[in-house]
Amino acid sequence: MAYFPFSNQTPITMFDTLTRRNLAHGGKLMMIHVEIPSGGLAPPHSHPHEQVTYLLEGRAEVRVGEETYQLSPGDSVYVAPNRKHEMRALEDCRVLDVFTPKREDLLQ
Amino acid sequence: MAYFPFSNQTPITMFDTLTRRNLAHGGKLMMIHVEIPSGGLAPPHSHPHEQVTYLLEGRAEVRVGEETYQLSPGDSVYVAPNRKHEMRALEDCRVLDVFTPKREDLLQ
Repeated sequence: MAYFPFSNQTPITMFDTLTRRNLAHGGKLMMIHVEIPSGGLAPPHSHPHEQVTYLLEGRAEVRVGEETYQLSPGDSVYVAPNRKHEMRALEDCRVLDVFTPKREDLLQ
Repeated sequence: MAYFPFSNQTPITMFDTLTRRNLAHGGKLMMIHVEIPSGGLAPPHSHPHEQVTYLLEGRAEVRVGEETYQLSPGDSVYVAPNRKHEMRALEDCRVLDVFTPKREDLLQ
């Protein structure tokens, strides 16, 4: 499958307050869309997958390893394999996360 | 490097009318931001890298192999390795492209 219309993707709740939609994926590449309400948190976690996070909307604080970054829309972050990371929404946020390889655990 | 502020990324012209900014990248994962003016074209091309394209803004027609799709903001497309693809902007577009492995040719 090549085409993933946004409106076809079912919202799934994650970490209590986050809403995830799986977007385009195939082979070793996968994109998801995440909504985090103001004050919401993706708690510290890690996985063997590489990740890029792109802030579509809102303002967020992201911690990667020992470093903390303030993200505005358009800013992006790279997370190396098994690197602990977390995100706190300072406003209502919309985020894209991209993974290689695919997060099979999120596709089920 | 983990943090890639959008405003730090230098615009580079590509395919005559497209403007590319390299965003977060590392290991085997890379994101770029592309602006395509209305009527602009990313001509048919292919590469061994897997790709996901996400339409941030505008409207676009994307061809992947033998299929053509009309993209609205939020829609995304997966392109398998060596699959021919092209994009035509029906309005001024802003696009994210993600690749695995990294497009070293675009980083130079």
